[in-house]
Amino acid sequence: MTATHQRIVLASRPKGAVTPENFRLEQVPMPQPGPGEVLVLNHYLSLDPYMRGRMEESKSYAEPQKIGETMIGGTVGVVETSNHAGLAIGDTVVGLLGWQEYGVAHGRQLMKVDTRAVPMSAYLGPVGMPGVTAWYGLNRLCEPRPGQTVLVSAASGAVGSVVGQLARQAGCRAVGIAGGPEKCAYVVSELGFDACIDHRAHGDVGSLGRALREAAPAGVDALFENVGGACLDAALACMNPFGRIALCGLIAGYNGEDIALRNVRALLVSRLKVQGFIVSDHMDVWPAALAELGRGVATGKIRYRETVAEGLAAAPEAFIGLLAGRNFGKQLVKLT
Amino acid sequence: MTATHQRIVLASRPKGAVTPENFRLEQVPMPQPGPGEVLVLNHYLSLDPYMRGRMEESKSYAEPQKIGETMIGGTVGVVETSNHAGLAIGDTVVGLLGWQEYGVAHGRQLMKVDTRAVPMSAYLGPVGMPGVTAWYGLNRLCEPRPGQTVLVSAASGAVGSVVGQLARQAGCRAVGIAGGPEKCAYVVSELGFDACIDHRAHGDVGSLGRALREAAPAGVDALFENVGGACLDAALACMNPFGRIALCGLIAGYNGEDIALRNVRALLVSRLKVQGFIVSDHMDVWPAALAELGRGVATGKIRYRETVAEGLAAAPEAFIGLLAGRNFGKQLVKLT
Repeated sequence: MTATHQRIVLASRPKGAVTPENFRLEQVPMPQPGPGEVLVLNHYLSLDPYMRGRMEESKSYAEPQKIGETMIGGTVGVVETSNHAGLAIGDTVVGLLGWQEYGVAHGRQLMKVDTRAVPMSAYLGPVGMPGVTAWYGLNRLCEPRPGQTVLVSAASGAVGSVVGQLARQAGCRAVGIAGGPEKCAYVVSELGFDACIDHRAHGDVGSLGRALREAAPAGVDALFENVGGACLDAALACMNPFGRIALCGLIAGYNGEDIALRNVRALLVSRLKVQGFIVSDHMDVWPAALAELGRGVATGKIRYRETVAEGLAAAPEAFIGLLAGRNFGKQLVKLT
Repeated sequence: MTATHQRIVLASRPKGAVTPENFRLEQVPMPQPGPGEVLVLNHYLSLDPYMRGRMEESKSYAEPQKIGETMIGGTVGVVETSNHAGLAIGDTVVGLLGWQEYGVAHGRQLMKVDTRAVPMSAYLGPVGMPGVTAWYGLNRLCEPRPGQTVLVSAASGAVGSVVGQLARQAGCRAVGIAGGPEKCAYVVSELGFDACIDHRAHGDVGSLGRALREAAPAGVDALFENVGGACLDAALACMNPFGRIALCGLIAGYNGEDIALRNVRALLVSRLKVQGFIVSDHMDVWPAALAELGRGVATGKIRYRETVAEGLAAAPEAFIGLLAGRNFGKQLVKLT
């Protein structure tokens, strides 16, 4: 064990697009676990779109990330020192230890996970926060019914990929929207969606809408929305009466671009329900959802893909790539 | 009884704003009731914003109004001839007999009403479709809880006025938005809302938002939306987490104006629920709602105001005035 380790702090708030200068890599003393606390060597850091919101000064649903402090983030790692009766050296634990090589947390704030059938990194993806986000939005908000059509934006991503696979398992037709032919091919051939539309191949809402109607000939009954903007407007025009929209993210507008919703009339005419949600409001569903998702990954029924950046120093560029859609599947940083 | 009577048909579909030329007054033969049918002398015709949607070629939630046919509309009148066992000459009945002096309908399509404690015209307003719209949207979608704040746009209108009064009765703070100082004064002093904002006194979303925050210092928990556009964006910025939005109408955009919703992020950040609805989808609530609303009007607990145009020929101008907000309370046409 070294006497110091590396972390990345928020150096400045972005003005528009995030740049590498918004972050600073620091060498700092090793954290020391106090009573009840545990020292964890982080193996993987999760990079997620929600972090973009936290970088803003304005209050989102959570407090903003403070300048000069370690960037927040989900992590999975191995216990190195334990002052907590429930955790032993060598245990694998998931936590929110942030963008750093080592972290200290109270044992209560860490979840011990079983890596015999599920790889460690999957606990940051399909068997972690993104997976539960997919599970909650689909099962509690989209009300999937056999034979209906579920549309998912950012379909190859950590959340969208799980949404579509769970929708198929619920007997629905799953249609994805993704950026580029490679992602679309993966969504259909590897994840088993019924169809996937490349939004980059369509210049406007009308063209996107025509492609959607072809992919969802019976209309869209439920929409799991991760993006916003033109894709959302095109989807609204294809929604069937009494459709449900789980509003999970608006990554199209994370740099301040216009994500205005123009087709407001569809909400009224088709009597749609839109529900914005954040998975951390619904901790009650996590145990059941994680159990189901874990079984799915262990048995190969839920497939996933990861993009892994090597080393903490690579995290800022990987995060900027995530916001631009350059990742493919779950974006991770391997820290050790 | 005369051998002919007057009706108004849709002469042409509007291009943008509705004009008098979109309608045509015709003298036509008196309709004759067949088996089970009833001839009704219409006393009042109801004018409602939904009619604007029906004038469009494109399918809204209902079939478009056909060119050359009698304009659809709710009516209340008195039975003149009856071939239906359940209805007698002299009975007062509510129906959808349209923009005409006389109408024929099957007895099953008419609702007999009691005018001893509730005036006939109120069955087209607070004890009719607008009242049930208010009741459903408030009670089933806005989830009013004592101490919470309910915001209502078009607050002096046939629907909005009932929403606010029911919200007050549910123990909520009721805040209205209306056009002009006279309507706002009425909403507060006559209807008993806690506050009302004159949207005409505010040039932009920011100014409206400041006025809203002053009127709803604890934020807005539920929004009953009749208008859309800038008022909706301003309201979204004031919504508390887990707020509910009953989307009832978008009168701001009925002539094709931009009603884009710009503050989409609020839906996500505040985890809002938006539900578009049409009261005719929910016939199951009508009996209970009408009973409650009837008691409210009979006992003076629900107050209302009417703007009454005289004679069928005045209907087109009255309807155009309704779309421009020139009416004050429920817009009716007195036919006899």
